Amino acid sequence: MRSVAKLREVAVVGIGETKFGSFPDRSLRDLVSEAGNKAIIDSGLPKEKIQALYLGNFNSSYLCGQSHMGALVSEELNLGNIPTLRVENACASGGLAFRMGMMMVATGVYDYVLVGGVEKMTHRETEVVTSALASAADSEFETALGATFPSLFAMIANRYMYEYKSPREHLAMVAVQNHDNALLNPDAQMHKKITVEKALTGLPVASPFTLYDCSLITDGAVFVVITTSEIAKSLNQKRPLVEVVGSGHAGDSIQLALKKSLTTFSATVDAAKQAYDMAKLRPEDINFAEVHDCFTITQIINTEDLGFFEKGLGGKAVEQGLTSIEGKLPINPSGGLKAKGHPIGATGLSQIFEVTLQLRGEAGERQLKNAEIGLAHNIGGTAASCSVHILRRR
Amino acid sequence: MRSVAKLREVAVVGIGETKFGSFPDRSLRDLVSEAGNKAIIDSGLPKEKIQALYLGNFNSSYLCGQSHMGALVSEELNLGNIPTLRVENACASGGLAFRMGMMMVATGVYDYVLVGGVEKMTHRETEVVTSALASAADSEFETALGATFPSLFAMIANRYMYEYKSPREHLAMVAVQNHDNALLNPDAQMHKKITVEKALTGLPVASPFTLYDCSLITDGAVFVVITTSEIAKSLNQKRPLVEVVGSGHAGDSIQLALKKSLTTFSATVDAAKQAYDMAKLRPEDINFAEVHDCFTITQIINTEDLGFFEKGLGGKAVEQGLTSIEGKLPINPSGGLKAKGHPIGATGLSQIFEVTLQLRGEAGERQLKNAEIGLAHNIGGTAASCSVHILRRR
Repeated sequence: MRSVAKLREVAVVGIGETKFGSFPDRSLRDLVSEAGNKAIIDSGLPKEKIQALYLGNFNSSYLCGQSHMGALVSEELNLGNIPTLRVENACASGGLAFRMGMMMVATGVYDYVLVGGVEKMTHRETEVVTSALASAADSEFETALGATFPSLFAMIANRYMYEYKSPREHLAMVAVQNHDNALLNPDAQMHKKITVEKALTGLPVASPFTLYDCSLITDGAVFVVITTSEIAKSLNQKRPLVEVVGSGHAGDSIQLALKKSLTTFSATVDAAKQAYDMAKLRPEDINFAEVHDCFTITQIINTEDLGFFEKGLGGKAVEQGLTSIEGKLPINPSGGLKAKGHPIGATGLSQIFEVTLQLRGEAGERQLKNAEIGLAHNIGGTAASCSVHILRRR
Repeated sequence: MRSVAKLREVAVVGIGETKFGSFPDRSLRDLVSEAGNKAIIDSGLPKEKIQALYLGNFNSSYLCGQSHMGALVSEELNLGNIPTLRVENACASGGLAFRMGMMMVATGVYDYVLVGGVEKMTHRETEVVTSALASAADSEFETALGATFPSLFAMIANRYMYEYKSPREHLAMVAVQNHDNALLNPDAQMHKKITVEKALTGLPVASPFTLYDCSLITDGAVFVVITTSEIAKSLNQKRPLVEVVGSGHAGDSIQLALKKSLTTFSATVDAAKQAYDMAKLRPEDINFAEVHDCFTITQIINTEDLGFFEKGLGGKAVEQGLTSIEGKLPINPSGGLKAKGHPIGATGLSQIFEVTLQLRGEAGERQLKNAEIGLAHNIGGTAASCSVHILRRR
């Protein structure tokens, strides 16, 4: 982001989400209706105030025969003839929809924006879902050769364990921790306690990954309402103000083979730097974070690239309990993509939902003690796209 | 758009496109490489200046197994690790990608932005392309009942002819005129002179439409480079400065059945009003326009809703020659979607390309005599999304 933009302070004033899971009887419309209306009601704003909709959706075109999702969602939520935009950057679609909506308020184009994300995946056969997901990689140079995301991230994991002499068990510990957190999240798809032993001996997917290293296939929707901090204060909401103080957006090559490193995600490093600079904060100022964990290795590498831990020590931090809900820097208190679930287009918003809920002090059984500044980190593909947002309680 | 935003003046400083047509031997990468590099070279800017990419792509996810197109295009064009965003609003994807890129420069977030659009369609069977296109309508309440876009717009045409007692021949005249214009456009897909008689007696598609009332299925890519007018002037390009002086973005229900009128596209009316207000111009100030003509009736209705002609007189204007290249208000000098072609995600950019070329005076055989202010109008679905941009030569 360039300093030339005079940005207004913005706040998240409404949040809503569906439960995450497999819902054969629920349509796209049904999911967005629940989450969208919840967010608007939560904001206390009349629907007529909403001036624009930014929607993250990865691949309903393929999975549901439904493109043009912005228009569909606006109609379903009865928002009138407002402008809508669907954005898609693979698994970062939600985080980037949030960034677009946030920037449109920050720069003064609109005062009230609704941002949502939705994906309906579980009604299709596994092969179809696998194809849909694989389309986020390079169709000519990766998927045509047989690579899918589990195999791409498995290569990353193997390289990481080689470079840093990191034990396989660290991956399993990420899964155990995120499953533990999800037990406390009523909206999470997975409510199942696991052990390191169980994670290590799960169904093999792509070596070193077992099923427990992989995030879930999920139906779900999440929406948030954004306005200026000035307007937010005038709403007299009986809760703390949650401001978006930092935003970053960066890219990298879509092909894994063209990246400079397999074990550092430069898009995460770049987007985080933008967000920290904008917020005038450092990694050590962050109290907790929702970090993209499409696979267990992804969380470990990203927590390093966000500046939370030194390179090679992300797994050790999990082992030491630093990232648990009781730890010094809780990661994925929601359960993450691994256990809350990964409804692709909604995932980035799911992170914003959790960070906002924690900052408000409304996270119930999983409420963190120290939650003043939270970070949401979302990547697409093998970190070919990344958004980072920093939210702060005022 | 809200007046609160202090917008910088912005300019289109580079344009590039592929020929439009059916290119079985060309990949998505090949198309974007040609058009993207042409646009950057045309701008005279070093590639390293580009700070962000906004990409319009409708449905490569389904047609080519390739999502995450922003990352793919950035990699192919060797743009480094810049942030990218794919936007999709059906056939308005290109126009809205342009709006996002333009707004990110106007609001000061970036100084140099590349905006592109691409679609590769002709390699798939007709049924697959029809399904891909139909996903832009409502999958539950329209396509599931057998409706596709030709039948939806045919209903609109029938209602229009009934309400305004407009002759069927007017539709054919739109086709004839756009075919005539495309004969002068070397990049156009269709180079074939037709007559009203031929258009009327073409292969029936959905009554009253024959094949000649329908736009084309097209492979193609178009890119443009946007920067501030201040920077543009410093580039000392040996050509007139082309500024974006107005931008509008509006929506409407995705379902045809929920629209207030079948014969007025409220999204066009709303987006045009925003663009005129921002530009401080009126419809009568516009010298020429590229107007969305997915079907012949679409062009007629939209030229009315843009304020160029009274309701019910859009067809008469074509009959009277007002909209021809030699007329008072040339419409679609490029040949339009009907004859230049309709590579969905690229179409909105194709319009910006033509308007810019005309304003520069570089449109060759089809150069308009009076080209100081041009308008580009792009819709998605049955006008459920709309962007309008006004460009001006300085």
